[in-house]
Amino acid sequence: MAFHPAQIIAQKRDGLALGDDQIREVIDRFSDGTLPEYQMAALAMAIFLQGMDARETTTLTRSMLESGSTLQWPQDGSLYVDKHSTGGIGDKVSLLLAPLLACQDVRVPMISGRGLGPTGGTLDKLESIPGFRTDLSETEIQQVVADVGCLITGATDSLAPADRKLYALRDVTGTVPSVPLITASILSKKLAANLDALVLDVKWGSGAFMKTPDQARSLADSLVTTGTQLGLATTALISDMNQPLGRAVGNLVEVLEVLDLLKGKGPADVRELTLRLAEEVLKKAGCPAESLEDDLANGRAMERFEKMVRAQGGDLEALPEPAEPGEVVSASAGYIDSIASEQLGHVVISLGGGRQVMSEPIDPLVGIEILVRIGDRVEQDQPLARLYTDDAEARLAANEAIRNAISITDTTPSPLSLVVE
Amino acid sequence: MAFHPAQIIAQKRDGLALGDDQIREVIDRFSDGTLPEYQMAALAMAIFLQGMDARETTTLTRSMLESGSTLQWPQDGSLYVDKHSTGGIGDKVSLLLAPLLACQDVRVPMISGRGLGPTGGTLDKLESIPGFRTDLSETEIQQVVADVGCLITGATDSLAPADRKLYALRDVTGTVPSVPLITASILSKKLAANLDALVLDVKWGSGAFMKTPDQARSLADSLVTTGTQLGLATTALISDMNQPLGRAVGNLVEVLEVLDLLKGKGPADVRELTLRLAEEVLKKAGCPAESLEDDLANGRAMERFEKMVRAQGGDLEALPEPAEPGEVVSASAGYIDSIASEQLGHVVISLGGGRQVMSEPIDPLVGIEILVRIGDRVEQDQPLARLYTDDAEARLAANEAIRNAISITDTTPSPLSLVVE
Repeated sequence: MAFHPAQIIAQKRDGLALGDDQIREVIDRFSDGTLPEYQMAALAMAIFLQGMDARETTTLTRSMLESGSTLQWPQDGSLYVDKHSTGGIGDKVSLLLAPLLACQDVRVPMISGRGLGPTGGTLDKLESIPGFRTDLSETEIQQVVADVGCLITGATDSLAPADRKLYALRDVTGTVPSVPLITASILSKKLAANLDALVLDVKWGSGAFMKTPDQARSLADSLVTTGTQLGLATTALISDMNQPLGRAVGNLVEVLEVLDLLKGKGPADVRELTLRLAEEVLKKAGCPAESLEDDLANGRAMERFEKMVRAQGGDLEALPEPAEPGEVVSASAGYIDSIASEQLGHVVISLGGGRQVMSEPIDPLVGIEILVRIGDRVEQDQPLARLYTDDAEARLAANEAIRNAISITDTTPSPLSLVVE
Repeated sequence: MAFHPAQIIAQKRDGLALGDDQIREVIDRFSDGTLPEYQMAALAMAIFLQGMDARETTTLTRSMLESGSTLQWPQDGSLYVDKHSTGGIGDKVSLLLAPLLACQDVRVPMISGRGLGPTGGTLDKLESIPGFRTDLSETEIQQVVADVGCLITGATDSLAPADRKLYALRDVTGTVPSVPLITASILSKKLAANLDALVLDVKWGSGAFMKTPDQARSLADSLVTTGTQLGLATTALISDMNQPLGRAVGNLVEVLEVLDLLKGKGPADVRELTLRLAEEVLKKAGCPAESLEDDLANGRAMERFEKMVRAQGGDLEALPEPAEPGEVVSASAGYIDSIASEQLGHVVISLGGGRQVMSEPIDPLVGIEILVRIGDRVEQDQPLARLYTDDAEARLAANEAIRNAISITDTTPSPLSLVVE
């Protein structure tokens, strides 16, 4: 049958479902460059506004998976598991979860991404460790997973290349926050990692793509349905992102917080969410979770983390100090009512610790520590945050922006629950 | 202010109005090539699905007009008028209307287009006259209009170039039938022709872009409001396109029908619509319409047509014969219930008389004459149409397609009114 891209675009534009063959051909031709980017952009916008049903989303995901190759693992009966988060401010769970899971009877080949916009990227955070490599080849990935039991690295060129190309296009055409497009993007990469089980941390709130629990639930449903349909045991938690996860927001400061957590210290919310996600994915993999909290407390997870960092070329001894700290104090007394988390992400970008376009370099030393949580009582002049920057001029504007992001009220607000469902 | 195209796209995607500065900058940058086509394509789809209000449509039209220059006319008090049709099967009104209006006290610099898809193009029809040139320069346009009072030619490169670029993109991204985008496309070109009055023939039905009278009314409203807003006296008729206009569908056969009409013969519906459009635009220009019917009957309009053809290099004496004629007969007796006009357009394309992509050449000699109209009584084996083609094999499929396009029923259908309002 002849391929009429303008007709396929018009079909989706008019709210009709696309056929499996049509979706496959669109992705094949977009991958090999015979479908122009302007047609893919128009189609992405039509998908954004008209949606895709479960069958279409599954076919889209499969087509993107099949645009590349799949990681191969030894046939030794090991279970391979992973977690993916839809992204949030201060979300450093991956750094903690990979070594923690590797203490159990599973392997964790975590393929991660960089930060774009207000949410930071796992790879950027890890690269604040001198020497840490996030560009492992497929052979290196196989080797480190076999030796250490876990790793965190970027996708190789051969894993779901259609997704890389489509994501870059969506990023500049206002078509990122679409349930079917996010589903296909996340799952095509995870399926290419050839996993036995996957847990998704779908976040909603001021610091997440999904601004309401309903939107997050709809994305979680799509991810679980599509993953399951494609033979991957998939489960999801919906978690709150109305305030940063943990205290640290930035690259090096988040790594330092992870090291605290691996010593059994650090903020309770990060630990709680990490343990919940570990339990969920182990259950889904059919692997009993044993002594997870102990592994964090007694240093087993820390050992595993250190081993992973060494295997990926990193040197924790050479870890730098954060930039110059300074306190941001409260202008009034009262209760913390809300924290505009996305604004905190923008402050970190403005200091050079994040990027607006993919080509920008990152300063790992800048960051924020948020010292309060929603519901806390604060007095006037009490420190709300610690800000790390060597730029005295930027500090003034950043202090102001942080103060504006933290809203204080006279009445006691109701507490938030971290894991919604 | 910095220009963030992805943010502008997202704004329209979310159903919000764009600011005048945003629209202007988008069109400026699209014209000069600094806004990539993929971003324009995503925005066009967002505009298609979310619409634009009257202010946005006006600004879009003005920005597209200002992407090029404006035709200049002598300051001698002459009135310049034109007509634009949204396109229909067998619509040869322009060929008749330009010389007819030129018999009055107005000048008619008609800037026309080529056919794409099932509806034919005025320039393609005229080019079936040997030697006829449709690529006049601005100086030639001024000269022919001064000498003859009318012309029909293609847009020069300097008239609304943003429209040419955007139309080519819309054509391949499923974003053609959008009210604000059609409005800006039509009016930017007509405004560039520096007219005193414009009448629009907005068609609805099986052979038109707009499939319902409501859609046509909404487009007509948008065109009249926007044109008026931009200082052009604009009026519109809504006319029926549920059956071909006149009998001839094709290039040469339509020119032959026009010559018949200029001799006071030919199908009544084309004559009626042409006269109504002439009256409307003359009234809008504030110029009394005199003896329009006479000008058709007594050969004055014919003289003017011949003069125009000569001035544009054409030779009516050298007009070829159509391809081999053959009859398409009715398979049953009954009443003509409906005519799928668009399918007739596709038949002409399949014979080589139209194009699916702009680069295709056209065979002017093929065509169809439809011998029946909706409501007509026909007997079995009565000729329904005459088909002109030299390709015996294509003829069989075309006969079948024409028979299928003309539906016959047992009951008397209600008659259609040509001009709806």
